[in-house]
Amino acid sequence: MPDSLMKDRETESVDDVRMRGFAGRQTVEAALAWLDGQLQPLGAELLPLSASAGRVLTSPLVSDVDVPGFDRATMDGYAVAADSTDGATPYSPLPLDVIGDSLPGRPFPASVGVGQAVRIMTGAPLPTGCDAVLPAEWVEQPAGTAGFDRDAPRPNLAGRRESTVSALGPVSPGKHVGRLGEDIRRGTALFAPGRVLRPQDLGVLSSVGISRVPVFRAPRVRLVVTGNEVLPSGSRPHGHHIVDANGPMLAALVERDGGRVDFPGIVPDERDAILEALRAEADVVIVSGGSSVGIEDLAPRLLAEHGQLAVHGIAMRPSSPTGFGRLEHRLVFLLPGNPVSCLCAYDFFAGRSVRALGGLAKAWPYRPTRGRLRRKISSPIGRLDYARVRVDGETVDPLAVGGASVLSSTTRADGFLIVPADSEGFAAGADVKV
Amino acid sequence: MPDSLMKDRETESVDDVRMRGFAGRQTVEAALAWLDGQLQPLGAELLPLSASAGRVLTSPLVSDVDVPGFDRATMDGYAVAADSTDGATPYSPLPLDVIGDSLPGRPFPASVGVGQAVRIMTGAPLPTGCDAVLPAEWVEQPAGTAGFDRDAPRPNLAGRRESTVSALGPVSPGKHVGRLGEDIRRGTALFAPGRVLRPQDLGVLSSVGISRVPVFRAPRVRLVVTGNEVLPSGSRPHGHHIVDANGPMLAALVERDGGRVDFPGIVPDERDAILEALRAEADVVIVSGGSSVGIEDLAPRLLAEHGQLAVHGIAMRPSSPTGFGRLEHRLVFLLPGNPVSCLCAYDFFAGRSVRALGGLAKAWPYRPTRGRLRRKISSPIGRLDYARVRVDGETVDPLAVGGASVLSSTTRADGFLIVPADSEGFAAGADVKV
Repeated sequence: MPDSLMKDRETESVDDVRMRGFAGRQTVEAALAWLDGQLQPLGAELLPLSASAGRVLTSPLVSDVDVPGFDRATMDGYAVAADSTDGATPYSPLPLDVIGDSLPGRPFPASVGVGQAVRIMTGAPLPTGCDAVLPAEWVEQPAGTAGFDRDAPRPNLAGRRESTVSALGPVSPGKHVGRLGEDIRRGTALFAPGRVLRPQDLGVLSSVGISRVPVFRAPRVRLVVTGNEVLPSGSRPHGHHIVDANGPMLAALVERDGGRVDFPGIVPDERDAILEALRAEADVVIVSGGSSVGIEDLAPRLLAEHGQLAVHGIAMRPSSPTGFGRLEHRLVFLLPGNPVSCLCAYDFFAGRSVRALGGLAKAWPYRPTRGRLRRKISSPIGRLDYARVRVDGETVDPLAVGGASVLSSTTRADGFLIVPADSEGFAAGADVKV
Repeated sequence: MPDSLMKDRETESVDDVRMRGFAGRQTVEAALAWLDGQLQPLGAELLPLSASAGRVLTSPLVSDVDVPGFDRATMDGYAVAADSTDGATPYSPLPLDVIGDSLPGRPFPASVGVGQAVRIMTGAPLPTGCDAVLPAEWVEQPAGTAGFDRDAPRPNLAGRRESTVSALGPVSPGKHVGRLGEDIRRGTALFAPGRVLRPQDLGVLSSVGISRVPVFRAPRVRLVVTGNEVLPSGSRPHGHHIVDANGPMLAALVERDGGRVDFPGIVPDERDAILEALRAEADVVIVSGGSSVGIEDLAPRLLAEHGQLAVHGIAMRPSSPTGFGRLEHRLVFLLPGNPVSCLCAYDFFAGRSVRALGGLAKAWPYRPTRGRLRRKISSPIGRLDYARVRVDGETVDPLAVGGASVLSSTTRADGFLIVPADSEGFAAGADVKV
């Protein structure tokens, strides 16, 4: 070993040293460039409207109806021909004969003439002969008439005068009327492909009679947790066995990113078992553990032998022993077994892919914030660092840069910041993006 | 009608005029004050770890094990007593007899003496007699020894010398060793009540052997969509019937906020049917439609007769004809039928409650941003306005302040801004929070 390497020994991270066994490390940029070339969204599936919130449209949706489908009142009052109210004031009220009611779904069945009015509820169809709604409050009713009190007697005999009210002011044509097609006109493009459907979008789609929605298929993601020392989640740790932390974590991350998780259990660290798992019926296979170059690290060789190991070893910390490639139609990720490295490698590469295959944005689903660094963070040129931090108001406190096995550092953290490969880190007091 | 009201007529909104029928409008602050007094989180339920992402802890979780549960290697190399490497340099290497392997879950079964070494993998138990790991790269191996190549012959007979390697440098005691309890010490409080469980939290809980997690019960939310003119979602609009927009929208909103939706279908606008629906087995009942004071507005009276109608009519636009109260243990919300008002009233009151009952933060789950207003927004003193806006970079473009029936305005919008009750609005060019 040359002197120059020896003297750096004590400051090297575990990952740095482990990585010497790799043929060569790629930069994060190069690794992402390969990956992004693979990320075509999957095909479409047709979902019931009620199951499509948060999903991504594959094709434009066009309304083939007008909404509203008829002229309707936008407030409670009296449907009239606007002419019938011309010149009305509180000092010279104009009489209107009330000849019936129009209720939502129960239109007034006859035509309304000049000097006549139909009591109308918000949302109810505007009767023939009317072009405006006189608000209830602009009308003087004789005592004892039904008005808008539900419990009042209400003969509602279409065409026969029920009572007479007085208009206290004029309305102009079209006033307080929602016109046919005013909200959505037939033929209107409602949403473009790529739209992530929001709750109110479902409302709009429902109102135009759309019941099934074409969305990108959710990626099927097979989780492959390997390791003979690993007990399944739910076990108690004992002896020299540890309990799987990565499986439950990855399952929750994949679900957050819109993937459908298939995680049938721990896979023994054996050639045939791992190869069978790599060939699972899935769009994405995420292997956790066994991604390095040691005795037990079968997955990278199997991927290289049976598919394509496009990237293996990345200039970042943690997570440098990360690999990915393809096996037939599947994207395969080899994530480190150390939980922090596994989380970070998922965040950088696998999560991006799960989102993109499902038609979602590749970008991190985290909210960026800014703050002032309490202590400096150092990082060598040429390596990207992912530093867990605590955020307290405007102050950003680095927790740990290394320590790939200490998952509790990520649960104490409020966020992370990225030290780019071309940076030596940030000084204390620096303004940083978290 | 007094003159002062008449002259304001043309600028009044639909909601303003409709609200005259209410006994009196409460401020948003007063309405929230009553509501917040009701929002005790529900009881606990015990969930499998795998179903608990995003849920909220009711009680602290403490680890009753150490993680790791044994001293282990944090990198691939040779487990040694650090003393065995004292004085080693590349110029005066020290010989070490390799007497076997320690693999994860397969510890070396014997003790290691001075001058001896055990080949060890990351995560494997540190053998008795060792206190450090000499990285593989600091060791010179004679050609033909197994090293870390999986395919090399590997007799691994514990205690018998397999080969001799040379240490090229010293390690200090504890180097590259993860100590028992280093990640999590037995008795450590992992998470406090109120913690919203993140994916990495599930990893930590799994690693300490926790399989079930006490979380706040998800509120059961019964949706009651009323209206004889309303067809169920999935129908085509026809005649004077409209298709329910609010049901699918509310269902997606409630699910987003952690509620469990019960939505068996449209409820006819009849006394008995609505009363039965108000008495559903639920923590929250959300009625959409029939919340105003007109002929068809049964729900407010039924709530007042059989329970408590605490708030009815709120000084805001849209959504002023909103009410809420209690019916026995249930929180009941009466949201306007107009889709925009329904969305806004959900956002202000019902969503807050669904989140709070499930132990989540009451605050809106939206990301705030800032921008410069392109056109002015006006709003009368005393009324809070919820204005839909489009955000284009730094520019904020108001879409519509009124128009409660035009749900497509909310789907074109990127966000909303609040004009407080004590403000007359914002001038064009103002810096606003969206």
